[in-house]
Amino acid sequence: MPRIHFQQQLVALKDKLLAMAALSQQALEFSVEAYLSRDIGLSNHVQEIEAAINAAETDVDEMAYDLLAKEQPMAIDLRFILSVIKINGDLERIGDQSTNIAARTIALGALPGIQLPVDIKTMGSKVGIMIRRAIQALLEGDSKLAESVLAMDDEIDDMNKAIQAELVEVMKQHPEVAEQSLNAIIISRNLERAADHATNIAEDVIFWIRGNDVRHKFSMIDAGSVEDRHLPIV
Amino acid sequence: MPRIHFQQQLVALKDKLLAMAALSQQALEFSVEAYLSRDIGLSNHVQEIEAAINAAETDVDEMAYDLLAKEQPMAIDLRFILSVIKINGDLERIGDQSTNIAARTIALGALPGIQLPVDIKTMGSKVGIMIRRAIQALLEGDSKLAESVLAMDDEIDDMNKAIQAELVEVMKQHPEVAEQSLNAIIISRNLERAADHATNIAEDVIFWIRGNDVRHKFSMIDAGSVEDRHLPIV
Repeated sequence: MPRIHFQQQLVALKDKLLAMAALSQQALEFSVEAYLSRDIGLSNHVQEIEAAINAAETDVDEMAYDLLAKEQPMAIDLRFILSVIKINGDLERIGDQSTNIAARTIALGALPGIQLPVDIKTMGSKVGIMIRRAIQALLEGDSKLAESVLAMDDEIDDMNKAIQAELVEVMKQHPEVAEQSLNAIIISRNLERAADHATNIAEDVIFWIRGNDVRHKFSMIDAGSVEDRHLPIV
Repeated sequence: MPRIHFQQQLVALKDKLLAMAALSQQALEFSVEAYLSRDIGLSNHVQEIEAAINAAETDVDEMAYDLLAKEQPMAIDLRFILSVIKINGDLERIGDQSTNIAARTIALGALPGIQLPVDIKTMGSKVGIMIRRAIQALLEGDSKLAESVLAMDDEIDDMNKAIQAELVEVMKQHPEVAEQSLNAIIISRNLERAADHATNIAEDVIFWIRGNDVRHKFSMIDAGSVEDRHLPIV
């Protein structure tokens, strides 16, 4: 019964991808938590999780390639496997962004702690929700849920622009905290890019479900994949 | 003669990808040139090129998917098509980085022009060379050439760190040019990310030629895919 075996392999591939997604989401959420509480230990842990993410990425890719090579799947199964390969790449990049945030927190360790007038916490939880929803949409084959992720991306772009504009003013008025402000600007950009990857995942889920390439149709409208296109802040 | 037809389609796919690569490389080189000469017209042109890149990306993907669905290629041909899909995504992201650089130049239009003590020109040409080499390696099936791209990525990471460190000092000493300095920091990061994408392409070329996943083997050594991992600058 080779087809039943093939369906089992598809389920196994989806499970592997979901395990990878859980790691990426954890890395992102821990990296923000570590920044907010200046927790170097947790930042180091994020960097360990990234190593696990990289191993999982190779694993998922190999399994997907094997399935393509041995089973020569057609139509919806082929689209699913191609989506898995793309989603896998985006999850790995969410891991990279999280590691960058963790590196910022570690670098900040040597500097005085200050209160900046920006809300990284809210931005971080929204990006976490985007990743969760994109993965849930994959799990449940829910294209409406995937679309809600695309809508959230605009909100994150706006938050990033507002944070940058605010912190440029801080740097001008208080050059002595230029490093801390720049760190927060870079973390905000890292979050914005993690949100872009969640958006890519949501688009791939829609592609898988609908067999329709939504990428540049949506990006014509909201330009979500290019940071700061509408309203450059500096 | 369906196999001859298939080989022709593979050649057509490679040609499409090379045309896409030419656009991405042009976008990057123009974006740096426009920044250096504060040329708003050329920056607008980069944003037009990006629209063409997005259209080309969809085109390449559709052709690759069609080939996978209809021809069910095996072994080296399968690996080639999968590499094309990944390289396509990286080229599109080089277009995004170029558009970000162009947006910075447009935003800078309103600010006084100043001379900053950093060499974006050299960094930009090195990234241009990385993209050229990665594409040439694909064209010629030359894995040694692809490896030389991986080595250059370290150099770009170091330049990015040095530029950031230098400009943090400028912002502290001269808060009145905080915006221009931040712009240059962000452009330097955009270039560093474009270099990461060139590195990804080179890795995919090696994967295609050798059938061996080099990604995380190399990244264990040089950590090239994560910005600023070794030496956070702030």
